[in-house]
Amino acid sequence: MRTNYCGLLSSHDLGKSVTLCGWVDRIRDLGGLVFIDLRDREGIIQINVPQGELTEIAKQLGREYVIQVQGEVVKKPVPNPKLNTGDIEVLASSIEIFSPANLPPYELSEPNVSEELRLKYRYYDLRRPELQNNLRIRAKAMRSVRSFYDAHGFIEVETPVLMRSTPEGARDYIVPSRIHQGCFYALPQSPQQYKQLLMVAGFDRYYQIVKCFRDEDLRADRQPEFTQIDVEMSFVKENDVMTIAEEMVVVLFQEVLQVQLPTPFPKLDFETAMKIYGSDKPDLRFQLPLITVTKYFQNSGFHGFDQEVEKGGEVVALKLHGQSNVSRKSLDVWQEKAKKYGLAGLVTIKKQESNLSSSISKFVSPTTIQNVANALEMENGDLVICAAADPETIYPAFGNLRVYFANEFNLIKKNQWAPVWVVGFPLFEWNKEENRWTAVHHPFTSPIPEHESILELTPERVKARAYDLVLNGNEIGGGSIRNHRSDLQKKVFSVLGLSQEEAKEKFGYFLEALTYGTPPHGGIAFGFDRIVALLCGVDNIREVIAFPKTTTAASLMDGSPAPVSPKQLQELGIQIVQSK
Amino acid sequence: MRTNYCGLLSSHDLGKSVTLCGWVDRIRDLGGLVFIDLRDREGIIQINVPQGELTEIAKQLGREYVIQVQGEVVKKPVPNPKLNTGDIEVLASSIEIFSPANLPPYELSEPNVSEELRLKYRYYDLRRPELQNNLRIRAKAMRSVRSFYDAHGFIEVETPVLMRSTPEGARDYIVPSRIHQGCFYALPQSPQQYKQLLMVAGFDRYYQIVKCFRDEDLRADRQPEFTQIDVEMSFVKENDVMTIAEEMVVVLFQEVLQVQLPTPFPKLDFETAMKIYGSDKPDLRFQLPLITVTKYFQNSGFHGFDQEVEKGGEVVALKLHGQSNVSRKSLDVWQEKAKKYGLAGLVTIKKQESNLSSSISKFVSPTTIQNVANALEMENGDLVICAAADPETIYPAFGNLRVYFANEFNLIKKNQWAPVWVVGFPLFEWNKEENRWTAVHHPFTSPIPEHESILELTPERVKARAYDLVLNGNEIGGGSIRNHRSDLQKKVFSVLGLSQEEAKEKFGYFLEALTYGTPPHGGIAFGFDRIVALLCGVDNIREVIAFPKTTTAASLMDGSPAPVSPKQLQELGIQIVQSK
Repeated sequence: MRTNYCGLLSSHDLGKSVTLCGWVDRIRDLGGLVFIDLRDREGIIQINVPQGELTEIAKQLGREYVIQVQGEVVKKPVPNPKLNTGDIEVLASSIEIFSPANLPPYELSEPNVSEELRLKYRYYDLRRPELQNNLRIRAKAMRSVRSFYDAHGFIEVETPVLMRSTPEGARDYIVPSRIHQGCFYALPQSPQQYKQLLMVAGFDRYYQIVKCFRDEDLRADRQPEFTQIDVEMSFVKENDVMTIAEEMVVVLFQEVLQVQLPTPFPKLDFETAMKIYGSDKPDLRFQLPLITVTKYFQNSGFHGFDQEVEKGGEVVALKLHGQSNVSRKSLDVWQEKAKKYGLAGLVTIKKQESNLSSSISKFVSPTTIQNVANALEMENGDLVICAAADPETIYPAFGNLRVYFANEFNLIKKNQWAPVWVVGFPLFEWNKEENRWTAVHHPFTSPIPEHESILELTPERVKARAYDLVLNGNEIGGGSIRNHRSDLQKKVFSVLGLSQEEAKEKFGYFLEALTYGTPPHGGIAFGFDRIVALLCGVDNIREVIAFPKTTTAASLMDGSPAPVSPKQLQELGIQIVQSK
Repeated sequence: MRTNYCGLLSSHDLGKSVTLCGWVDRIRDLGGLVFIDLRDREGIIQINVPQGELTEIAKQLGREYVIQVQGEVVKKPVPNPKLNTGDIEVLASSIEIFSPANLPPYELSEPNVSEELRLKYRYYDLRRPELQNNLRIRAKAMRSVRSFYDAHGFIEVETPVLMRSTPEGARDYIVPSRIHQGCFYALPQSPQQYKQLLMVAGFDRYYQIVKCFRDEDLRADRQPEFTQIDVEMSFVKENDVMTIAEEMVVVLFQEVLQVQLPTPFPKLDFETAMKIYGSDKPDLRFQLPLITVTKYFQNSGFHGFDQEVEKGGEVVALKLHGQSNVSRKSLDVWQEKAKKYGLAGLVTIKKQESNLSSSISKFVSPTTIQNVANALEMENGDLVICAAADPETIYPAFGNLRVYFANEFNLIKKNQWAPVWVVGFPLFEWNKEENRWTAVHHPFTSPIPEHESILELTPERVKARAYDLVLNGNEIGGGSIRNHRSDLQKKVFSVLGLSQEEAKEKFGYFLEALTYGTPPHGGIAFGFDRIVALLCGVDNIREVIAFPKTTTAASLMDGSPAPVSPKQLQELGIQIVQSK
């Protein structure tokens, strides 16, 4: 139906007869002379409609009408520098209307359209050049990832979407079975078991870009279905998996953004990351390290701190360069932030004209203040803020403050990339609500060999053979070496509070599989949506998903989820419980 | 952990020190001299274990143990022609056991293992070289398809798995929503609406290799979840879609099998296909055409046929070359087949030594027999079978008999490929059970322009702008030009018996989308599992799926579907209806 894309025409095509198809982006009637900006996937070209019969057709057109135009590519008297095709236009010899268009619900160029409206008319909103570009970057990224793994001997294997529910970790989406009434499938939270079984089966290197599902209460950056780059390898240790994962990410950024990430990616121990950056996904595009100054607050005289320290708490400080003149108003905002992150309040120390002053000067000795100032190497004009709390509170709180100040003081440069591996995670964490140990990563993660013997004795001390890949403060991937011996896997289940019967009921076939000759193996999974968002330079992953859902897991476009017919429920042998 | 794959070692590696990892495929103890066949993904190498310390370790090994071997590649005194690596072996200097292995449930080389057992131990069964190879062919086919579409300007877009249920066609799998209790998502039977919306959004060319779901009573070759190559294009007519689809299939067979399919693929009209081959997915690897001989049976004297003809039935014949001496026993089998396909029985005509004889000679005139014989150009030794029934019965029945005889008489050559496009389908078919018109393909298919005016008047006469791609008797793809005008789409819904309210309720957002400027568009979808089965030369698609389900949609490996916890149901606000 066409000979060329509008947006790809150039002065090389001068004199050619072309047939174009696309949408009316804009139409201008200059008293008889009509100009149409015709748009397709590749861009816009101006159509010059000569006076006469065609003018009549052109006058029927409206925005977003879909038309076909035949004509000749000619030079434009006055080039339009805003368009790639601005030095040419097409002199129309025929115009056919394929589809009229209702008045769009809003204009794509309008900056302040609510996301609700945009999601409802997603098929229209997707005409935005930014969204078109994001989805093309997404497709390019997929291609890059796949060709990398293909070239490195990984075999792409599709794993089932309808699987068994094994509620361990997040909530499963479940699917009632019609043939086996009363039974359900679950949608995969990840193909974890399948990829390990592929290692048992001897596939050696597996990958898949795959949809995964979690029925969680959604945060802003979560979707009920998300896309994962899933990888598993046999006969490997941590470094083997990390090396090839790092190489993939480097190639991806090269191919999609022509950006060279700094290699090798630094490695950071989990505990160090928490102490220095207050986060297990630290943003290393800026420094602003946390400094623990607890030792200066043993019976310092400042009751608030002394008390916390006595209970085993820590005092943590941040140095804000050149902020000694901070306004009262800003300080109030910071105090509010601190409270939001669970702190009682912030203490300040200022150095001005070589003099130290502090909000707690009247409680503590000048030596204490001096010690802290020395520890932070304060210079004139610097401001130090500090606070005390239990370690579970103070480090994450200061991690959040650290990021807040970095944004506040523009410490983050554009187009800067700071990847880092975080390693040395604990295997277990204590879950207060469930009153039991849960897996920090997932229950198939192996402890380091030296800690196998203390697995059941002191679970809190056991380190995992796990690694997370963090980029600019986002966890973009995580993986581990797995338990390839069924005895070790059973012990982990036991620490997690699964009785032998429960373990057999839930994972029996999997534990059995491990006994038929399982290679040592490990892998990694990457959050593809987040990676694409980083590649596109957007914060919201909905901007890189064609048809996303809202934070209540609804699609505003098609109205799903929606009621189904009584017949459907009857066939499935289920009914809806009347809510109170 | 290793330097080389076992199966990739060759005489080029002679003298090298290597570290290998893999499974013990076989172990032979020749009185002190122990030989291990070590297997990995790429093949088998013989390990020569010298007498001494290592013999003790080697003697602990059993089949399928996972080990690591270090040693030197040496020449084998007596080459083993059965192995690719048969001229070399590795003289072991160390052996480490990674995992012992229980006695496997059966031997992979055992030919008669039940499919049930094989599916239960799928992780073990996948070690079969045939399955390993099938899944590698599958991965290769994916790669080929994707690079074809990437190279042709198609954009890969992921569409949602959690969507709205629109029960039209097969049954949906549905997913209860926890956040919106009483509401459900559906899993896609195909991304049909999404891909059309991507055309509305101006993506112009879309593709995706995507999982789809149908909750149907399964036939042998169906899976509840299956993989589809999904394609859509804007500003196209039938031939544009067919041409590029055909090119993709040709490239796929070239790249994966190094086979050149005959091009261009022939086109066959639906009615012709039914009349000549008794099927809308005819196997053209052999001819054996059906011949309609109704006209010779007007008051022929053979009551059985005359009666059918009077009611509007047809008499159809098949010529079986050189089968005039068919045994009574074979004929009985054929009669049984004919009954199974809904026929009353088969009539035979034989030509032997220039004499015609028939099972109905005493009822009909010799001229009638002679006319049929002439119509089928019978030669000495030929046998003709014929039967009469209504057209809806007789053609499919003879279509089935045609395929049965082709197999019976070995008319199908190995490695023969007969692709064909079937076109000219009706848009609607009458559904007797539901007492309404249903869509032959799906409700978004466009009628041919000439038939738009008779759409509601004589639905039975309306032809669709649809096309199926058939290969060796398998429908491997199907598609159509869609209704891009919402008025036309509404008319089609109306013929299908959807009231305006129902259409609005089910497809309202979609009909609205069509009004905002929709390009003419069309597409196609291919059954990827079936294509891979053809590429692998297997009949059963379970042989090309890593973790398939049985015909009752169950996974024998993980026992899904399975009951879920009361807590899960409670959170979802549903309960199981007690079955009577």
